[in-house]
Amino acid sequence: MKQALVLGAAGFIGRHAALALRNAGYTVTGIGHGGWSEQDQRAWGVERWHASDITVEALTTYANMPSVLVQAAGSGSVAFSMTHPVQDYSRSVTTTLAALEFIRTEAPDCALILPSSAAVYGNVSTLPISINHPLMPVSPYGAHKAIAEDLCRSYGRSFGVRSAIIRLFSIYGPGLRKQLLWDAYHKLKAGEPNFFGTGGECRDWLHVADAADLIVAAVSHASAVTPIVNGGTGISIANRDVLAWMAAALGGDCQPRFSGTQRGGDPIGHQADISEAIPWGWQPRRQLRDEIPAIVDWIERGAF
Amino acid sequence: MKQALVLGAAGFIGRHAALALRNAGYTVTGIGHGGWSEQDQRAWGVERWHASDITVEALTTYANMPSVLVQAAGSGSVAFSMTHPVQDYSRSVTTTLAALEFIRTEAPDCALILPSSAAVYGNVSTLPISINHPLMPVSPYGAHKAIAEDLCRSYGRSFGVRSAIIRLFSIYGPGLRKQLLWDAYHKLKAGEPNFFGTGGECRDWLHVADAADLIVAAVSHASAVTPIVNGGTGISIANRDVLAWMAAALGGDCQPRFSGTQRGGDPIGHQADISEAIPWGWQPRRQLRDEIPAIVDWIERGAF
Repeated sequence: MKQALVLGAAGFIGRHAALALRNAGYTVTGIGHGGWSEQDQRAWGVERWHASDITVEALTTYANMPSVLVQAAGSGSVAFSMTHPVQDYSRSVTTTLAALEFIRTEAPDCALILPSSAAVYGNVSTLPISINHPLMPVSPYGAHKAIAEDLCRSYGRSFGVRSAIIRLFSIYGPGLRKQLLWDAYHKLKAGEPNFFGTGGECRDWLHVADAADLIVAAVSHASAVTPIVNGGTGISIANRDVLAWMAAALGGDCQPRFSGTQRGGDPIGHQADISEAIPWGWQPRRQLRDEIPAIVDWIERGAF
Repeated sequence: MKQALVLGAAGFIGRHAALALRNAGYTVTGIGHGGWSEQDQRAWGVERWHASDITVEALTTYANMPSVLVQAAGSGSVAFSMTHPVQDYSRSVTTTLAALEFIRTEAPDCALILPSSAAVYGNVSTLPISINHPLMPVSPYGAHKAIAEDLCRSYGRSFGVRSAIIRLFSIYGPGLRKQLLWDAYHKLKAGEPNFFGTGGECRDWLHVADAADLIVAAVSHASAVTPIVNGGTGISIANRDVLAWMAAALGGDCQPRFSGTQRGGDPIGHQADISEAIPWGWQPRRQLRDEIPAIVDWIERGAF
């Protein structure tokens, strides 16, 4: 049986990656932080779970000779990185270094898949954004993701470690208890529909299950030259449309209002050029507008 | 009295930076590893020395409200980084992060000067090398220096931390007990004049005292946009010329021989474009050929 190791497996992207790998035939070991029940672990495809800091020693102890390692550990929050840059760095970069060093010294045949972020690009005016666009991250979160990518490239070049980088755009789906859809539901329900921004800010929304499928697709393309793909749909959607769809799903009694000011560190517009991902035999299968009722349903059933 | 803090002050670049800062009117505190006598510390301009790991806590404890921090800690060895990538990373990157976080949280008016390296460029075929050339480091050492630079930029952009980056080319001078001049002296003296490479590899050699002057010049130019300069002479010299000059200084009885093969991780040719350094009122004042007798004298007096 093929073994996979998911770092940060209890997180939003980590658990979806674990499930997709299990469904692709892997036995999945998870390492990281976050309390979840054994029942949840199994439901998300995790056969063995180790609550631990992610260090070379922990990986050497628990990893179980993986052929794939998904580095999904990280804070996942631009705002957190602005108030806690060292902690964000530790969760994003130090964990990636541990994973690479573990592979170099203990599991040289293992491929590393790094879910990175469109935040590495910063504010780009020419859309869609190519993977070749210069990186100008505007938050510590984005800067740290770019550094994690650099480490993958360095270990590939100097030591032949195989990896692949997926720059994920705006990931959404059941399990994400923050960001626009989560906020929108609660603010609209509470009758306090005040949102940052102008409503004209655009995002490229990728369903987390599509992101997880892309992570699995990346496994057979990981190499010492560290290929990079964007993980998005190629479609840009304005926040005002997202909120209007959410308002409609909730009955339309409450309409969103915008502050007109932008939050520091957030990009103004994003749209992925997914030219490099398509040849991997992957494509996004879900559209945000169609998925909003499922998000609402998930929140109302108690947001497990 | 203005206070300066030098990380890695016992190192080759660190001690020359400390001396130059003392001569520029600073009271210098040093933190880092390396055993040196109190007499040596004073000779190199260091008023207070703290032998310690470089952490935010150590900096907060010992730093003494500096207006300048020179981040000269690091392994200083491409070869070491190939065999010990995590240790090189720790000495180069983790120390830089600690310095930036210390400034962000404890000393927001302090300017950070980062002696980086031409190793961030990798193998560049178009000489001289501009600071705008894409970074393609070919060793963990170079990759880690590039990451340290990225952290400076990130802290400047997100938190207004002022810094300046100096990409040093081949630094030489009394105190450096390794690399080409050191090896050349000992091999030629021993009558075993066998050297890696073809002899045609070129370097841009900058005297460490000129590098230290550039570090001092950078202080008044540090800013939140993190200016970058190359630290070199703008002159490229072939290794065969360097070795011929050394052989002549030793009497010319023994002539160098080359293996014809290149060592992994080393660049083939380097020459600095110093357009950005000159407007800082700095220029290199020493030429390698003229300095070789002083190097020989230093080694023969016991290489203090």
